[in-house]
Amino acid sequence: MIAQNPKIGAYDLAIDAMGGDHAPVSVLDGLEIAAERHPNAHFLLVGDEATLQPLLAKRPRAAKACTIRHAREAIPGDMKPTAALRVRQSSMRIAIDAVAGQEAAGVVSAGNTGALMALGKIVVKSLPEIDRPALAAIGPSARGDVVLLDLGANIVCDARNLVEFAVMGDAFARAVLGLPNPSIGLMNVGSEELKGDERVRLASEMLKASPLAANFHGFVEGHDITAGTVDVIVMDGFTGNVALKTGEGALKLFGGLLKQSFTSSWLSKLGYLLARPALERLREWMDPRRYNGAVLIGLNGLVVKSHGGTDALGFAHAVDVAMDMVTNRVNDRIREGLAAMPSRNRATASLTTD
Amino acid sequence: MIAQNPKIGAYDLAIDAMGGDHAPVSVLDGLEIAAERHPNAHFLLVGDEATLQPLLAKRPRAAKACTIRHAREAIPGDMKPTAALRVRQSSMRIAIDAVAGQEAAGVVSAGNTGALMALGKIVVKSLPEIDRPALAAIGPSARGDVVLLDLGANIVCDARNLVEFAVMGDAFARAVLGLPNPSIGLMNVGSEELKGDERVRLASEMLKASPLAANFHGFVEGHDITAGTVDVIVMDGFTGNVALKTGEGALKLFGGLLKQSFTSSWLSKLGYLLARPALERLREWMDPRRYNGAVLIGLNGLVVKSHGGTDALGFAHAVDVAMDMVTNRVNDRIREGLAAMPSRNRATASLTTD
Repeated sequence: MIAQNPKIGAYDLAIDAMGGDHAPVSVLDGLEIAAERHPNAHFLLVGDEATLQPLLAKRPRAAKACTIRHAREAIPGDMKPTAALRVRQSSMRIAIDAVAGQEAAGVVSAGNTGALMALGKIVVKSLPEIDRPALAAIGPSARGDVVLLDLGANIVCDARNLVEFAVMGDAFARAVLGLPNPSIGLMNVGSEELKGDERVRLASEMLKASPLAANFHGFVEGHDITAGTVDVIVMDGFTGNVALKTGEGALKLFGGLLKQSFTSSWLSKLGYLLARPALERLREWMDPRRYNGAVLIGLNGLVVKSHGGTDALGFAHAVDVAMDMVTNRVNDRIREGLAAMPSRNRATASLTTD
Repeated sequence: MIAQNPKIGAYDLAIDAMGGDHAPVSVLDGLEIAAERHPNAHFLLVGDEATLQPLLAKRPRAAKACTIRHAREAIPGDMKPTAALRVRQSSMRIAIDAVAGQEAAGVVSAGNTGALMALGKIVVKSLPEIDRPALAAIGPSARGDVVLLDLGANIVCDARNLVEFAVMGDAFARAVLGLPNPSIGLMNVGSEELKGDERVRLASEMLKASPLAANFHGFVEGHDITAGTVDVIVMDGFTGNVALKTGEGALKLFGGLLKQSFTSSWLSKLGYLLARPALERLREWMDPRRYNGAVLIGLNGLVVKSHGGTDALGFAHAVDVAMDMVTNRVNDRIREGLAAMPSRNRATASLTTD
């Protein structure tokens, strides 16, 4: 087992076995894959013991990697976060409690997103240096993967939040994408210095005066996400959430129309069959399972959200993301990054007196 | 000629002949197409007379529809809006002056976007009832075209601005898409009532208490743009600009990868040839020229921005959008829509006392 912190106990990750549309089967199938990829990992599997025991017995690698902890309840997908906070015996809560209690370095759940975010913030708590945690994930671009944050944890953000997101995005890209010097862009409506609101202009000035300056590309625009202009794109959670869903929607529309085109005639069906091996690679490349696993970053422990509808491969990818962050001690990197930032008061003061 | 307003003079539209990457040739070729589509239209063609005269002589339909007005200067594509405001003899300025002076109902330019927006706001001026004009355009969805606004004219918006955008979007969809009862969505990070910030929640309450209530769908998310969930999507200009460019970027990435797939082997090339007629229809459907023509809406006259790099077909489409709005008296509809809204003070007061 690879502990992120010497204080951390017996488990790399706690797993909410009961969250997600196809739980617990898809979760256990995902762990069977993950256990092969991470042979030394040890998982705390939280859920209904009577259900999990026979399923685990049929999955030898997962069985070896997992210890079951019983939870008699599960958070329904439509439960409000405020209600979910009151369910103390849910699989999600017990898994998160294991992170808060430092038994595990992180948690992975495919369950109720709002509940997971709320429980993460309230039970695991933010790093002392961080004002607000952010939701981060990886997306595809023409030049490799790109880290996007915040994707919706913070609807209203100030310049300080955006700067902290840059520090966290930098640590994320180093840990998960393995980039030694990730470039960072700040989302705006144009790349010129005078574009945007006061908030993004101030964040840009603060980043230019920080140790991240060398890797700070400046402002980027929406099309820079898929162009791969930078490795990390920082934005407020409202913009990030809309951008992510808009991009996903555009790809879905294109994919649907492409399918219609190929089935529209006998000749185009034949054309599809001939081009199929190449198109299958395209499909694999765009496969949302490859990008599964959004991380609530900036907490005293990792909280990773897997898509609720994903299958075993998607869940295994979310576990990969979590394991990369644990192994590479992403929180230690965030702490170092924040410690190296100039004092926020000083940075703001120097800007307002300029 | 179809006048929007009995006071409006001799021209339907003023055309900036010198704006855009391929001006004036692409502009004149576009007008040759537009003149065929709108046989009764009369255009004021503004630009260098010595250049335009011989080009027009070779395009008989455009020549019949156009009257040249000489402008000795052109606004460069990289000129700052503040500098462009001082160039009184530019083709863009003289064309806009013709709208402000009610000689023409609107202007179409493929030139410098920032300059056109600034000149539009300052020279043509907002409708008295409108706090801020918005940039609106049409995008593709799985269920037909969708009107999107604001796409970047207003970086910071309040609830009142969003409500005004809904009124303008409604008028736009009726005029350009010909929809008798366009449905309206308000962009947010989730569809539940409690999602988002104070601003979008207040705008939603105001819309529910307005004559638009019957067509107001409530909150929508990023993926609803291409899903075609509603006919009009209202958002602040920062979000709209990022969403538009993110969606365009995603389609470009997919298109590029698809092209790579088809050229990756001999078999896939053959497959492409067989499926080509169907794929050509897909290409036509996604053709950005079909969506060319962003309108600065809410002014005392139409200001339509054509993409700078477009060709004759794209420019002709921007003229189509402008002509649809002139013919359908979109500004009269906006005025009617705003007059029917409950007083903003009343709407706000009833919300704060609830």
